[in-house]
Amino acid sequence: MPDLIDRATLDFYLNDWLGLDELLVRPAFAEHSGESVAAMLDTADRLAQSHFLPHFKKADAQEPVHGPEGAQVIPEIRAAIAAYAGAGFAAAPFAPEIGGLGVPNLVHTAATAFFMAANVPTASYSMLTVGNAGLIAHFGTAKQVEIFVTPELEGRWTGTMCLSEPQAGSSLADITTRAVEDGEDELGPRYKLTGNKMWISGGDHDAAENIVHLVLAKIPGSDGKLIAGSKGISIFIVPKFLLDGSRNDVTLAGLNHKMGFRGTTNCLLNLGEKGGAVGWRVGEIGQGLPIMFQMMNEARIGVGLGATMMGYRGYRLALDYARVRPQGRAIGSRDVASKQLPIIEHADVKRMLLACKAYSEGALALILYCSKLVDDAKTALSEEARAEAEAVLGLLTPVAKTWPSEFALAANDIAIQVHGGYGYTRDFDVEQLYRDNRLNPIHEGTTGIQALDLLGRKIFKDGGRIFAQFGARVMAVIAAAPADFENEAVALRAAWGALGETLEALRGANGEAEMLANATNFLSAFGHVVVGFIWLSLVAKLPGDGDFAAGKKAAARFYFAFEMPKVAAWLAPVAARDRLTVTMRDEWF
Amino acid sequence: MPDLIDRATLDFYLNDWLGLDELLVRPAFAEHSGESVAAMLDTADRLAQSHFLPHFKKADAQEPVHGPEGAQVIPEIRAAIAAYAGAGFAAAPFAPEIGGLGVPNLVHTAATAFFMAANVPTASYSMLTVGNAGLIAHFGTAKQVEIFVTPELEGRWTGTMCLSEPQAGSSLADITTRAVEDGEDELGPRYKLTGNKMWISGGDHDAAENIVHLVLAKIPGSDGKLIAGSKGISIFIVPKFLLDGSRNDVTLAGLNHKMGFRGTTNCLLNLGEKGGAVGWRVGEIGQGLPIMFQMMNEARIGVGLGATMMGYRGYRLALDYARVRPQGRAIGSRDVASKQLPIIEHADVKRMLLACKAYSEGALALILYCSKLVDDAKTALSEEARAEAEAVLGLLTPVAKTWPSEFALAANDIAIQVHGGYGYTRDFDVEQLYRDNRLNPIHEGTTGIQALDLLGRKIFKDGGRIFAQFGARVMAVIAAAPADFENEAVALRAAWGALGETLEALRGANGEAEMLANATNFLSAFGHVVVGFIWLSLVAKLPGDGDFAAGKKAAARFYFAFEMPKVAAWLAPVAARDRLTVTMRDEWF
Repeated sequence: MPDLIDRATLDFYLNDWLGLDELLVRPAFAEHSGESVAAMLDTADRLAQSHFLPHFKKADAQEPVHGPEGAQVIPEIRAAIAAYAGAGFAAAPFAPEIGGLGVPNLVHTAATAFFMAANVPTASYSMLTVGNAGLIAHFGTAKQVEIFVTPELEGRWTGTMCLSEPQAGSSLADITTRAVEDGEDELGPRYKLTGNKMWISGGDHDAAENIVHLVLAKIPGSDGKLIAGSKGISIFIVPKFLLDGSRNDVTLAGLNHKMGFRGTTNCLLNLGEKGGAVGWRVGEIGQGLPIMFQMMNEARIGVGLGATMMGYRGYRLALDYARVRPQGRAIGSRDVASKQLPIIEHADVKRMLLACKAYSEGALALILYCSKLVDDAKTALSEEARAEAEAVLGLLTPVAKTWPSEFALAANDIAIQVHGGYGYTRDFDVEQLYRDNRLNPIHEGTTGIQALDLLGRKIFKDGGRIFAQFGARVMAVIAAAPADFENEAVALRAAWGALGETLEALRGANGEAEMLANATNFLSAFGHVVVGFIWLSLVAKLPGDGDFAAGKKAAARFYFAFEMPKVAAWLAPVAARDRLTVTMRDEWF
Repeated sequence: MPDLIDRATLDFYLNDWLGLDELLVRPAFAEHSGESVAAMLDTADRLAQSHFLPHFKKADAQEPVHGPEGAQVIPEIRAAIAAYAGAGFAAAPFAPEIGGLGVPNLVHTAATAFFMAANVPTASYSMLTVGNAGLIAHFGTAKQVEIFVTPELEGRWTGTMCLSEPQAGSSLADITTRAVEDGEDELGPRYKLTGNKMWISGGDHDAAENIVHLVLAKIPGSDGKLIAGSKGISIFIVPKFLLDGSRNDVTLAGLNHKMGFRGTTNCLLNLGEKGGAVGWRVGEIGQGLPIMFQMMNEARIGVGLGATMMGYRGYRLALDYARVRPQGRAIGSRDVASKQLPIIEHADVKRMLLACKAYSEGALALILYCSKLVDDAKTALSEEARAEAEAVLGLLTPVAKTWPSEFALAANDIAIQVHGGYGYTRDFDVEQLYRDNRLNPIHEGTTGIQALDLLGRKIFKDGGRIFAQFGARVMAVIAAAPADFENEAVALRAAWGALGETLEALRGANGEAEMLANATNFLSAFGHVVVGFIWLSLVAKLPGDGDFAAGKKAAARFYFAFEMPKVAAWLAPVAARDRLTVTMRDEWF
C-alpha cells in the first residue's frame, strides 16, 4: 500500500511554497514551530493508518442501520472519532482560551488531509464537529461554548449542520421549521422547534455520547406566520440529549441509502414530534444565514479537501498498481515471446497517471493555498493584507469546493481505468473511492450553486474588484515564472485575459438571467485557470532538480498542454452570450 | 415513469434519417415491411417493460451468488431471456435457413435498444448469445450450427466469449489456455482444453439449460510448447453440458463482485480441472483472433448501444424529475413568497438536460448509423458501396464503442446532478445507471485500446484512405446543411480540417510510439467530430418545425456551441506532438 500522502510533496507545499515559517512567527502562532508541526503531521499519519484506514471498506459494506435507538454504525467509527480528538486534532484550530491549541488553519488542514486520505466518511464526523464547534465558538455565548464546544473538542460529542428540508435544499429561503419562544435560561433564549430536516450528515449515530445540532429555523411573527425568504431564518443549538441526560425531541425518521460515502450516516430528522425540540438561539434573530455562511467558506474548503484526498488516494493506488501489473509490450515490438511490461511503461497509462497527478496534487495545493488564506484573513500583519486575503478567499472558495469535486473525481475515474476490470470490482479500493467522491459535487452547495456564487455574487455584485485583486496575484506568479516555463506563463496570461474579456462581454448581457445563464461554464474555465496559476506558482519554488522536481514539472507541463486548452472551450459559449439555456423550452425536450 | 424510448425520435431516426424504406426493398429483406418493423418495435417495447424493467433494481440488490451448482441469479432473468427469444428477437438477425428471420441489423438494433433501456445487465445475456451464435453461424460447420446455434436462437441456451485470462486482458497474445487434440467427431476436430478464463460475462448462471462458451486457446506444437503471440490462437466451442447431458470440465472458480452491472454474472472459469474440457474447433488452426475480430465490430457496437441506452434512460428520468421538482425562483426575482419553480425552468438545469439530450440522442443516432453500415456492408446493391460501408464501419467502430461509454456515462453523471441528493441515493434508478455504465469504458477493449485501433490500425496502417472516404460523407453533410445551420456547417468543416492537419503533423513523428503517444486524445477529438457530423446530418432531415424539430435543433445547436470547441482542446497536444507521455519516467511520479 502506498503512503497516505507523499510527505516530500506535503512538506514542499507547506515549507517551500506556502512559507510556513513566516506564518509561525506571527503572534497568534507563537506556541508552534516547524518541529511541532512536523510532529503533529507524523501523529496524524500514524493515527489515520491505525484508526481510519483499516475500516475503510468495512464501513461501506456494513452501512449504518436504523435500530430501535436510532442509527447504528460500526464500532470502529467511535474509536476513530475518539482517537482524532484524543490526539488534539479537534481542538487544534481553536483558541487556547477555550481549550484549543491555536494551530494555524493551514497546519490543521494538512493534518486533516491524512485522515481524509485514509477514510473520508469516518473523518467527516470529526470535520462536521470542528465546523459546528467553530460556529458556536465564534457566535455563541461563553456558556454555550462551555457546555457544547468543550465536549466536542474532547471527542465525546459530535456536531451537525441541519440546513436542508425535503422541500428546501438549494433554496434555504423556503425552510419551514418553526422555532417558538420558550423563555430563557443560562444557555440563552430558549425555543421549541418543530419541522423536518433532510440530508443531515452525522444526524444520528451511536459513535458519540451526544450530538449537537445547529438548526436553521424560522421564528413565527405575532400572527403565527413564518417570514418568507431567508431574512426570517435564525440558528439554534439543538442537542440530541438535554443536559439532564433525557432525550430531546429529535427523532431519526429515516436513513438515506447512498451510492457511497456510506460510513457517514445521512439522516431525515423529525423535530418536535412530541411537542417541540428544545433549542437555544445563537446570535441575533434573523441572522441564521449570515452566521451559517460565515462558516461556509471553511466548510466548503473541507468538502474540497475530502474530494481531493479521495482523488489523491486513487492516484496513489493506481500508481502502485501500474508499477506491478504486467500487460502488453512496447508499441512496435515484434518480440511476442518477450516478457510483458509493467503497464506504467505504456504512453496511455502515463497519460492517465499524469492526469491523476496533475488533478490530485494540484487540488491539494489549491486547498492548502486557500487554508493559508483563512489564516491570512485572520492573522496577516496588516489590515490591508487581511482584507485582501479575505476577499481572495471568498473568490476562490467556489473553486476550492468545486474543482476537486469534479477533477479529483475524474482522478478516481481514471484510477479505475488504470486498474482495468479489477478496478471495477469491489476487491479494490478505487471502486469505492469513485462512488464516495460522487457525493461531493452535490452537498454543501451543488456545482451550479457555486457557479452562481462565483459569477453573480463574488464577481458581478462586487463590481469585479476582487477579481482584479486576485489578478494581481496571477500576474505576480507569471512574472516570477522560471525561464523553462515561459510558454506556460504566456498561456496563463492569455487564459487570464480570456476570462477578463468574457466578463466584459457578459457586462453587455440583457439582464441578470442572461448574464448568469452559462455561469457553470464560467466556473469550469475559472477553476482551470486558478489551478494553472497554482501549478505555475509551484514550479517556481521547486527545490533542486532531482526526480521530485522533474515529476512536479512534468505534471505542470501536462496540465498546461492537456488541460489549459479546455479553458477556451468552456468560455466559447459564455463569451458568445449563448442564450440556449435561457430560450430552451420544456416542451422541446 | 417516462417511455423507455421516445418513439417519435426512434421513428425519425429510422425512417426520415436512415431511410429504412430503401433498406427494406433490398432482396435480403424482402420479407419485411414498415408495418412489420413497427410491430416488432411495439413488441420489443412491451416485452422490455414487462420482463426487463421490473427487476432492474432487484438484480442489483440481489447480486448473483456462488452456489453448490455454480452461479445463481434471480429467476426473473431466466424469464427475460426466454421472453426475448420467444418473441423471435434472438433469431431476428439470422438467415431464415438456420431458423432466423432475416431482419436488418438496423431493425434488430432498434428493437434491442428497448431491452437495453429497460435493463442492460439482463439484456446482456441475450446480446452475448446472439453474438456467440453469429460467430458459429458464420464460421462453424452445418452440424455445429444445428447443435449449438438452434437452442441459442430458441432461448434455451446462452452463449459467451471467453477471451481474457488473469495474466492476459488487453494482451490476448499472452493467453496460456491449452487445447490438446483429442480426435474428431460429427462436430469436427475435438480437443481437451486446460486453463483459466477471467472476466467472463454470463460465464455461469442458472438462467438457461446450457451455456455455449467460445474459448480462445492455443494448440501446443509437437514439442508441447505454445506458440508465442497471437498467431498461435485458435477458437473452440466448449459447452457447459455435453450433448449427453453430463457436465463438461468447466468449473466456476469465482464470481467478480462489481460496482454495478451486477445482474450479469462475471466469472472466473477453470477449464480442465479434471483432465480437460471438451471443445470443438471453429475454423482453421491459428485463426482464433481473426475470427473473433470479425465479430468484434458488432460486439463493440453492442457495448456502445448498452452504454447509450443507460445514458438515455438517465436523461429521460432526469427530465421527468426536473419537470416535477420545485426548487428556487427565477434569477433576480425578489418575490420570496411566491411558489417555487420546477427546476427545469433554471438555466443551469436546462444546460444539464440539453447536454444529456445531445449526448444520449446523439449516441443513439451514432449507433443506429453504424448498425445501418453493418447492413450496407452486407447488402448494399453495389460491390463498391458494400466495400465503402465496411471500411467506414471499421473506422467508426472505436467511436461507436467509446463515445457512448464516455458521454452517455457523462449523461448518467448529469442525471444524478439534476436529482441533487436524491440522485445519490439508491431510491432512484439514476444512481444504479451511473454505476452500471462505468463498466463500458473497460470491457470489449478499453478506451486506450480503441484509440490505438483507430489511430494505429484504422488510420495510419491504412494510409488514411478510409479516413478520406468517411471525409466524403462529412463533406456531403456539410453541403446539405440547412440554411439556419450554416455556422454549424462551417464549424464542422473547420473541425474536420483540424483532424486532417493533426494527422499530417503526426506523420512527421519520430517512430510509431511517438505517433501514437496521444492516441486517446485523438480518439476523443475524432469522436466528438463524428457526433457533430451526426447532429448536422440529423437536422437536415427534420420533419416540420413543431416542438419535436425545435428540440432536435436546440440539442444540435447546444452540441456545436458547448461541445465542439472541445475538439481543439483535445487536439492541441496531439498536433504539437507533445512527448510528455513518452518521456515521463516511473521515478518522477
